[in-house]
Amino acid sequence: MNGRSTHETSETSRPGHPEAGAALVESLARLIEAGQRDAVLAQLAALHPADIAAVLGHVPFEQAQTLFEWMPLALGSEVLCKLGDNFRGRLLADLAPEQIVPLVDSLDTDEAADLLADLPPDKAPEVLASLQDAETVAGLLGYGEETAGGIMATEYVAVSRTWTVAQAREELRRHAERVAEALDVFVVDTRGRLEGSVSLKSLLLSPPDAIIGEIMNPAVVSVHTDVDQEEVARIMDRLDLLSLPVVDSGRRLVGQITIDDVVDVIREEAEEDIQRMSGLSGDEEPTDSLWRMAGLRLPWLLGGLAGAGLAALVVGSFEDALRQAVILAGFIPIVMATAGNVGIQSSAVAVQGLASGDVWADDMPRRLGKEIAVALINGVAAAAVVGLFVMGLSFFADIHNPERLALTAGIALIAVILLAAAIGAAVPLILHRFGIDPALATGPFITTSNDILGVLIFFTLASSIYLP
Amino acid sequence: MNGRSTHETSETSRPGHPEAGAALVESLARLIEAGQRDAVLAQLAALHPADIAAVLGHVPFEQAQTLFEWMPLALGSEVLCKLGDNFRGRLLADLAPEQIVPLVDSLDTDEAADLLADLPPDKAPEVLASLQDAETVAGLLGYGEETAGGIMATEYVAVSRTWTVAQAREELRRHAERVAEALDVFVVDTRGRLEGSVSLKSLLLSPPDAIIGEIMNPAVVSVHTDVDQEEVARIMDRLDLLSLPVVDSGRRLVGQITIDDVVDVIREEAEEDIQRMSGLSGDEEPTDSLWRMAGLRLPWLLGGLAGAGLAALVVGSFEDALRQAVILAGFIPIVMATAGNVGIQSSAVAVQGLASGDVWADDMPRRLGKEIAVALINGVAAAAVVGLFVMGLSFFADIHNPERLALTAGIALIAVILLAAAIGAAVPLILHRFGIDPALATGPFITTSNDILGVLIFFTLASSIYLP
Repeated sequence: MNGRSTHETSETSRPGHPEAGAALVESLARLIEAGQRDAVLAQLAALHPADIAAVLGHVPFEQAQTLFEWMPLALGSEVLCKLGDNFRGRLLADLAPEQIVPLVDSLDTDEAADLLADLPPDKAPEVLASLQDAETVAGLLGYGEETAGGIMATEYVAVSRTWTVAQAREELRRHAERVAEALDVFVVDTRGRLEGSVSLKSLLLSPPDAIIGEIMNPAVVSVHTDVDQEEVARIMDRLDLLSLPVVDSGRRLVGQITIDDVVDVIREEAEEDIQRMSGLSGDEEPTDSLWRMAGLRLPWLLGGLAGAGLAALVVGSFEDALRQAVILAGFIPIVMATAGNVGIQSSAVAVQGLASGDVWADDMPRRLGKEIAVALINGVAAAAVVGLFVMGLSFFADIHNPERLALTAGIALIAVILLAAAIGAAVPLILHRFGIDPALATGPFITTSNDILGVLIFFTLASSIYLP
Repeated sequence: MNGRSTHETSETSRPGHPEAGAALVESLARLIEAGQRDAVLAQLAALHPADIAAVLGHVPFEQAQTLFEWMPLALGSEVLCKLGDNFRGRLLADLAPEQIVPLVDSLDTDEAADLLADLPPDKAPEVLASLQDAETVAGLLGYGEETAGGIMATEYVAVSRTWTVAQAREELRRHAERVAEALDVFVVDTRGRLEGSVSLKSLLLSPPDAIIGEIMNPAVVSVHTDVDQEEVARIMDRLDLLSLPVVDSGRRLVGQITIDDVVDVIREEAEEDIQRMSGLSGDEEPTDSLWRMAGLRLPWLLGGLAGAGLAALVVGSFEDALRQAVILAGFIPIVMATAGNVGIQSSAVAVQGLASGDVWADDMPRRLGKEIAVALINGVAAAAVVGLFVMGLSFFADIHNPERLALTAGIALIAVILLAAAIGAAVPLILHRFGIDPALATGPFITTSNDILGVLIFFTLASSIYLP
């Protein structure tokens, strides 16, 4: 892994930096137009594959295609691993299967499986069949993409408990090329069942004739291939593990997950949560086409619009009340904004607690109670502010019976805040209990339902307290 | 690090699991009440420190204090590292400095510095002065909490390029206890300046008489102590590094950051982003008191309320228009919900792009253009839906001039969506350029300003298109 760091020593010249990025893209564009392949490759040689991937997303797509075609095979493979799924699919769509096979062959099996999963369905089988590790990759494709089996690498070093440290070192040497990410060596019995692990550090510090069975950690934590990747991340983070062996139902070792995979999982899951909370589909990439972006976002907008339509109908059903006191319309923004803000606060806290594992299933009553108590405190504060606002306004504008209006608005606000907090906190917890991603609920859905109920509560209270 | 995994082999009995958690907390509570220290410790012995930390947050605070006091020193230190900052502060608040010192002494210097930073200001200096590594810890406290210096460990193994592999192994052995997280060994010159790195794997696979200078990676990437932790995480993730040496202005090696630190940083930053986007302060913990929670959330609510008050004044200023056509009030929820949803989508995309480094500074015009184009597509779609909604409604309700109302609502919606998308995308990019965290802008702030402008646009258009 550290081999990659030979690509650069300074972090100030990376293309992400304002000036460097624009200048680089421009100079590459000129060279590509001029067909100067060697000059282009010379420029790319100074960059890390991750940076080249970033550059591809910043030049026109045709230039990205040319750049990619010009790259030597090994570099092309490394860059592919660093691209977003959609962009990678577009880039590979025009290549023939026989061009794709060598690119995939030079990847680790887990990366190969990821890449195959994104290939168009007409190409994937042909590419798969021609791979060197076709069988292993096909096996990996059988696991869910977000499970331990889906993210594990099948490259690992396994030794026997009866071996000496010297033998284990020799085994590691034999696999050094293939297993780039060796952080621990795993101990298996004759039937391949996991028995323990030995860290590289203890392999390095133990005498050559020490027996593996005596220096290994026999209480090694492992996960089954079906375990969700979020759970994998939590386990490794919680137990401070650098690598985690993955076993099948017979406790046979089938792969390993290393800490750098977990970094990717945590990033992905966090991005997914933010996207879902924001009414995005979770797989939008900056390089996607306009129509794809619009298509991914529209369903959420239309869902929100449907909810808003209901809120509009609620407002419409109080037309008489509005006719009597048109000033009530001014409270719609106040009620909606407050309901929305409180609902998002409570639901974000619930979603985070669930994501981090802080919230246990039996915590629900206690968590809800706490959210409602916090809402009551802040509801009273917000009611006081709005009440004072109405009273203050009555000195400048002609408001009928301002005391009663202030009272109505204050009571409505407390009720709305209590309800929004309860819904915001309860819905994620309930969804989680039914195995649905709670982040889905947090954004537009909770905001919309709180809007509708908020407007309903306000106008009902206004009709019975303020108007008669 | 893997030593910790001896605590357990199965992941099904962890307290996070519904039944196990509740039962454990109950049984501990009974044992604590009965003063059965030994029985309590026997139960805790089966748990990982991270799980014990979780249990502390789930029992009443007085029981948590008792539990913590009963723990042996080493366990107490490990558990402390896994607690939230606020909770840890409360737990240590009642201890005398001479009780805190031994707990801190058994931590790595970076963890010790973190812990000291959370101590009450009247205790921290006294604890610091009594520490074994007082000088190092004091040095660490001088770095910003979210910089490379603030998260680095000063425990690392440094060797000379003239040494043999055997000598380097001996050095590693000497420091094995102190440096729990040795993934690479660093090469420094006689003045302590970083010259290269050697991975444990190549130390293990090279012959004992090989010279370090010949097997080291001379192009090792390092960061200065002042580099922001988010940038550190991006570099290590991008370059797939397991450890990153930290240097001072003279390029002298002063510490190392390991990949597990980065996992924490990514998690923290993602949580912070979600909290800021949701109108939370970013340092709320589930174990915080009601008043603290309420106090942390109230400013955001009051800010939202102030914005909503402005929107209410805008509505109020169109009182005459509303009196003429009270049906216009029904469009307030539609305009607000749509402006809010579009603004959040666009801003979340911008915030994520900035966080991941996908967005370069010179991308701004292109990104904005794309957001506005997507908004135009979805604006037209949303306008069509609302227009049809109005026309459909006119069959059931008495609506004056429904065609013109549908046209007004449609144009207003397109305008609102365009504006909301532009504001949502531009504000984070602008804030980022001025060095302010763009996530701050995403939640309540953008929603509120879009609400105000949305209502203003709608009523202005309604006054000039629909009413005359």
